[in-house]
Amino acid sequence: MERFAEDRVAEAAQLGQDAVLLAGAATAALIGGKRLRARFCLTGWRAVAHASGRTQPPSEDVIAAAGALEIFHAAALVHDDLIDNSDTRRGRPAAHRSLQSQHDAHGWHGDAAGFGRSSAVLLGDLLVAWSDDLLEEGLRQSPHADHARREYARMRREVTMGQYLDLVEEAAAATVDSSEHAERALRVATYKSARYSVQQPLLIGAALAGGDQEQVDALARFGLPLGLAFQLRDDVLGVFGDAEVTGKPSGDDLREGKRTLLIAYALDSLPAGPRRTLEELLGDRQLGDEQVTYLQSTIAASGALDRVERLISDYANDADRALRGAALDNAAVGSLRDLARASVSRTS
Amino acid sequence: MERFAEDRVAEAAQLGQDAVLLAGAATAALIGGKRLRARFCLTGWRAVAHASGRTQPPSEDVIAAAGALEIFHAAALVHDDLIDNSDTRRGRPAAHRSLQSQHDAHGWHGDAAGFGRSSAVLLGDLLVAWSDDLLEEGLRQSPHADHARREYARMRREVTMGQYLDLVEEAAAATVDSSEHAERALRVATYKSARYSVQQPLLIGAALAGGDQEQVDALARFGLPLGLAFQLRDDVLGVFGDAEVTGKPSGDDLREGKRTLLIAYALDSLPAGPRRTLEELLGDRQLGDEQVTYLQSTIAASGALDRVERLISDYANDADRALRGAALDNAAVGSLRDLARASVSRTS
Repeated sequence: MERFAEDRVAEAAQLGQDAVLLAGAATAALIGGKRLRARFCLTGWRAVAHASGRTQPPSEDVIAAAGALEIFHAAALVHDDLIDNSDTRRGRPAAHRSLQSQHDAHGWHGDAAGFGRSSAVLLGDLLVAWSDDLLEEGLRQSPHADHARREYARMRREVTMGQYLDLVEEAAAATVDSSEHAERALRVATYKSARYSVQQPLLIGAALAGGDQEQVDALARFGLPLGLAFQLRDDVLGVFGDAEVTGKPSGDDLREGKRTLLIAYALDSLPAGPRRTLEELLGDRQLGDEQVTYLQSTIAASGALDRVERLISDYANDADRALRGAALDNAAVGSLRDLARASVSRTS
Repeated sequence: MERFAEDRVAEAAQLGQDAVLLAGAATAALIGGKRLRARFCLTGWRAVAHASGRTQPPSEDVIAAAGALEIFHAAALVHDDLIDNSDTRRGRPAAHRSLQSQHDAHGWHGDAAGFGRSSAVLLGDLLVAWSDDLLEEGLRQSPHADHARREYARMRREVTMGQYLDLVEEAAAATVDSSEHAERALRVATYKSARYSVQQPLLIGAALAGGDQEQVDALARFGLPLGLAFQLRDDVLGVFGDAEVTGKPSGDDLREGKRTLLIAYALDSLPAGPRRTLEELLGDRQLGDEQVTYLQSTIAASGALDRVERLISDYANDADRALRGAALDNAAVGSLRDLARASVSRTS
């Protein structure tokens, strides 16, 4: 992935020094992160490719696909931070903010924040193009190119839809009957995260290893509940997480007004008074630390936190069960279980 | 393309009624336009495929590629209008404005304009995914898939860079030595438009017909100057165009502060007084009709308009010459010349 990014920066240099700025920002956007999608992709491949007992290093196609997933994710985060108006990412300035700083540093003319936002739209587009290029580079000789391409394309459409549904939830929640909130929050979690972050990377890996229906089904049955557990953990961290560990301000999801399952459960259980307060404060960008602390204890007292924690461990158990007896490589299954535990019990 | 969009809307319906809103907006973004890129792609294909004297209907791969180019262009326009903060496109509300109206119409909560902008980021992403999907659907059986994919990928990277360079020009112009303005404006025109709108669609078509080096070179030598002529016409229309015909407010490029070759020439030729006025008013979103009229006559009086018009006809002649004696189908060459004339002399 680094080699690929270097080639792209060199290509951009042919268009002049300014073009290198954007290519450099794209390279910077690839730094850090948990590389979760790449790991699931590679481990999905290994679970199938090594099932026959023969150990072999990952093939070129799956290495490229794993890199493409990470580049695509970097693109999604650039657009996501822009949409959420988030100032930080992975403990550093979000892309639109660092592009804004370049405008300032060069002493350019006009609205620096607007330049940062506009450039971030294009930066995300460039990263999507890069991710496709890396994928295609890897698939050129692959016997499973068509299958992997279809999985990848489906992932892209679905995650974009999932992000849109998330936006709609934030806007539409008050107009939707409260009995539907939990179901709608789970739908967003499924498409925006569970399938995208876990299940689909696994299936792309399995496709490139030529997995049969039974192997693919086992990985799919593992990936979806694990992905949901992963997202629900994210929702919990978004409200209760420690800023020092997550790299995001504590209670950020409350300020953004995210309509997660945790919030849906809280609104469902709270008496009228605290419910109204939660509804009023949710999405208020100016929430202070005291208000965040108050909302945290309100949500915990409602029982919603316990309910979500129980669901996380139910989903984790479902995921675990799905791998039992599957015709998959044992060592890879062990790695998947480790990844699962780390995803579900993480603090950042 | 329409059939493809219908399938995507049906797929989105599985994610619920809200997902159909975004898929519907994507379908709406495909309506209208000159279909210039599809035409150049199909005609590039025909110029090579029919050169042997055998007439045949366009193959599935080139039809898909032509459609993919139009879908990709719709995506670029959605992001472009967002970046330029343009309210209208093709005489109708720009995508971020119509998504904003949906927010209003549903009585949703929060900032409708922000929702429109955020959704438009995702809408552009969705359309890019659609364009890839259609391309890949068409390339599945194509003997020239790899070559076409490489051309297509290069086009995507370059146009994104070109759009970014355009943004930088608007911001950096005052800090750049004025002797460089014309060259920098031409660089933006080359990548953002000439290669993207004309040369690369032609070459993608030629690649899918299995064109040899000589045929590809002739089309490339035709496409680049024609593309530049096309963009310079656009620059002229952006300042002098009739709002009734272009579907955009007259003088829109002046309000947006676009640093076109026309502007570079004007700044180069004007005496200090009017030059300062032009520099001050350029990029002022609040320009009234009288100020636009004043700037139009200032730019015309500077000789810049004549200079650009001469360049347009020089480029058009270069393009014309490139096709002489080329081993390409005569009827297709005739169509290319017609397309060239229409592109260069258009009023919208």
